[in-house]
Amino acid sequence: MSRVTPLSGFPEWSPAERVVEASLISTLREVFALHGFAEIETRAVEPVARLAGDSDAAKEIYALTRLAAQEGADARLGLHFDLTVPFARYVEEFQSKLAFPFRRYQIQKVWRGERPQEGRYREFYQADIDVVGRDVLPAHIEAEVAVVMARALAALPIPKATMHINNRRLVEGFYRSVGIEDVAGALRSVDKFDKIGADGVRKELGEKGVSETAQDAVLELAKIHSRDTSFVNAIEDLWETTFTTGDEAAEKVFAEGIAELAALVSAVNAAVPGTAVADLRIARGLDYYTGAVYETVLEGHEDLGSICSGGRYDSLVAGGGFPGVGMSIGVSRLVSRVLGAGLASATRAVPSAVLVAVTSEDDRRASDEIADALRARGIPAEVAPSAAKFGKQIQHAERRGIPFVWFPETGEVKDIRSGVQVPADVRNWEPPAEDRWPRTVRA
Amino acid sequence: MSRVTPLSGFPEWSPAERVVEASLISTLREVFALHGFAEIETRAVEPVARLAGDSDAAKEIYALTRLAAQEGADARLGLHFDLTVPFARYVEEFQSKLAFPFRRYQIQKVWRGERPQEGRYREFYQADIDVVGRDVLPAHIEAEVAVVMARALAALPIPKATMHINNRRLVEGFYRSVGIEDVAGALRSVDKFDKIGADGVRKELGEKGVSETAQDAVLELAKIHSRDTSFVNAIEDLWETTFTTGDEAAEKVFAEGIAELAALVSAVNAAVPGTAVADLRIARGLDYYTGAVYETVLEGHEDLGSICSGGRYDSLVAGGGFPGVGMSIGVSRLVSRVLGAGLASATRAVPSAVLVAVTSEDDRRASDEIADALRARGIPAEVAPSAAKFGKQIQHAERRGIPFVWFPETGEVKDIRSGVQVPADVRNWEPPAEDRWPRTVRA
Repeated sequence: MSRVTPLSGFPEWSPAERVVEASLISTLREVFALHGFAEIETRAVEPVARLAGDSDAAKEIYALTRLAAQEGADARLGLHFDLTVPFARYVEEFQSKLAFPFRRYQIQKVWRGERPQEGRYREFYQADIDVVGRDVLPAHIEAEVAVVMARALAALPIPKATMHINNRRLVEGFYRSVGIEDVAGALRSVDKFDKIGADGVRKELGEKGVSETAQDAVLELAKIHSRDTSFVNAIEDLWETTFTTGDEAAEKVFAEGIAELAALVSAVNAAVPGTAVADLRIARGLDYYTGAVYETVLEGHEDLGSICSGGRYDSLVAGGGFPGVGMSIGVSRLVSRVLGAGLASATRAVPSAVLVAVTSEDDRRASDEIADALRARGIPAEVAPSAAKFGKQIQHAERRGIPFVWFPETGEVKDIRSGVQVPADVRNWEPPAEDRWPRTVRA
Repeated sequence: MSRVTPLSGFPEWSPAERVVEASLISTLREVFALHGFAEIETRAVEPVARLAGDSDAAKEIYALTRLAAQEGADARLGLHFDLTVPFARYVEEFQSKLAFPFRRYQIQKVWRGERPQEGRYREFYQADIDVVGRDVLPAHIEAEVAVVMARALAALPIPKATMHINNRRLVEGFYRSVGIEDVAGALRSVDKFDKIGADGVRKELGEKGVSETAQDAVLELAKIHSRDTSFVNAIEDLWETTFTTGDEAAEKVFAEGIAELAALVSAVNAAVPGTAVADLRIARGLDYYTGAVYETVLEGHEDLGSICSGGRYDSLVAGGGFPGVGMSIGVSRLVSRVLGAGLASATRAVPSAVLVAVTSEDDRRASDEIADALRARGIPAEVAPSAAKFGKQIQHAERRGIPFVWFPETGEVKDIRSGVQVPADVRNWEPPAEDRWPRTVRA
């Protein structure tokens, strides 16, 4: 057997850390469900052909081989690298059984064979919500999805999250108006702004045949941002001074995009004040977005990059007909930061609120009965593993982080933190509410 | 993009079916936690060298290859096929941070590249509990683990589960007393009793050099079972008529095993009456069990085989020093049966108890505010996707399975099942408790 060493990129938590992760996930589930999102889970694998597609993530796919299989005996399978590809396949496969607009959330692990040294994980939880329509999807859903995610993030023990929103139609209309033909290519370059800077973007755009005037316009557009609809004035000012080709179709798309973005930012801020910023620099690398695009930054943790991203797409399914909006939280990266930066921690590592002491091995049954009586009233309890001296049993509780020790013979319960010991009745004794279960508390 | 077809062996549930699966898992979590078991999750992958070991499951490992990696660039990784191998590695890796006896539960998916046609899954949930000591583990833990699992199963919407228990020391002492040297080999043959019958077992034992008298004794022993400690008398009767070699060490182990099994069956039945059967045919294929071994059969669903199995082992970790007891539920197989046999179903597929109607798109904000007021009081709600005629909006609720429709203009709420419509105040209206969330109900 090989020596035990952690695998880089595959995080694992201690029991106390898992309390924090599980409580974050449980909070997300609750917020999503309160807003009418149904949960689904998809299998972890998809055919490699489907996964590969045209996404950048495709080259980091983990393919599976059965050790026992003959070469070529199975269809080639790979682990999913996000929850969108499997969700698209799920909708396609189960469409006749689903009611549209279909609102679903999905919290599962995904795998990416990236180089792990960049603080990226190879196995991590994502939490996605999507609303997918049949043929149509009203624009107000773009606001709703952002609002649900903003509320979900606000319910977590993390600093304030700000959602940066842009609109693909606005950008596309503008790019085409200034004479850019390869809009997708230009978007991919602008998406690298944080990595390669203005000069880098300019260089890439030049290589893609974008004129210098158009490069200026693109970079000026990317500078515009506002916490309200004042970005609209800034865009109008820019438009005044920008050379445009007079492409009326493009200008119409541009104008519609502006109106959509203004409405969206207003709607999100009306529901969750101070959440949304119109930010014309947000590009998102993925080609399939066709309306709103979102990225979310955590105050004081901007180095994490976007912790919750997504957008609107014309169709989830290759054949068309399933327009939708979705956003995805990178849960593991968030949990890792919460733990690493000490933003929150668990009140204890074990569920038990009470350790029932054992007077002697012959009396173990009496202790079991006390524990059962507590459990029947929803109080997590365990019985001491051995009838050691009470001092030892109390030490055992301390080591496990259990706050109360119950002594069957005297019918007393001791809060081992304060040392206070009082008579108690299993039929009605209650721990303080905050001690009943392990909780995650902000630092 | 390839056509969408289900992958054999990789089950997926509809949203309503997922409600059932999630509620079963949530029930297990609650029972485990009430008994002081802490949750951990391990990464999905382990080095293939560690997975391979000597288990039969090893040959069904799914190995991973990064599509983008150069051949041999990574340590060979595979998906875990159970939760015991990763748990053993976790305990070895984190031992300095854990308090022993360490009580953990773990509910995760595992993967096995088996031939799927036998109704077996290639991806499925397991739910494991284990208690692992440092150097020592008292015998009463063998009862405790069985009791927790019996209670967990009793809390699920399934028929009565009966736990068949044997003791490896009893069997080993007996086998050695009748002259069998390859005890592990003999056990593996007896474990196949259900598949190959008495004659098949006899044949295999013969091939392994077991004498005919010993074969008789082994098969007679396997016939013994009782719902109480009366199996002890049956064993004594068998012993009287059996040729034994007079190996005193073996006889001592045999006697101790009998006493342990009698105590265990009594303790489990005292805590959860009618649960345990001493069943001397239970062998379990795995070599590492050294005390109690458990299998669990569901009344009326014996064809499923054991739905919850496990046993006591001397050490979880190769070097020794971590004795433990563990049991594992095959959750997905159980869920599949619950759904397939209609044992239980979800009251609805979506979380929303209320659909808030929209009078006109201009009034959408009023509907959003009603939904938010309900959510703030923990009532799951969603707003109609479009301001269609109310008849259409009610139809939408029906199709999604949402029981109540709220009309903002009149301030009334309609139970669309009964058609009863009443005035309601968002500050205090409550749905019936059974309608607040989707629930899983027995058929």
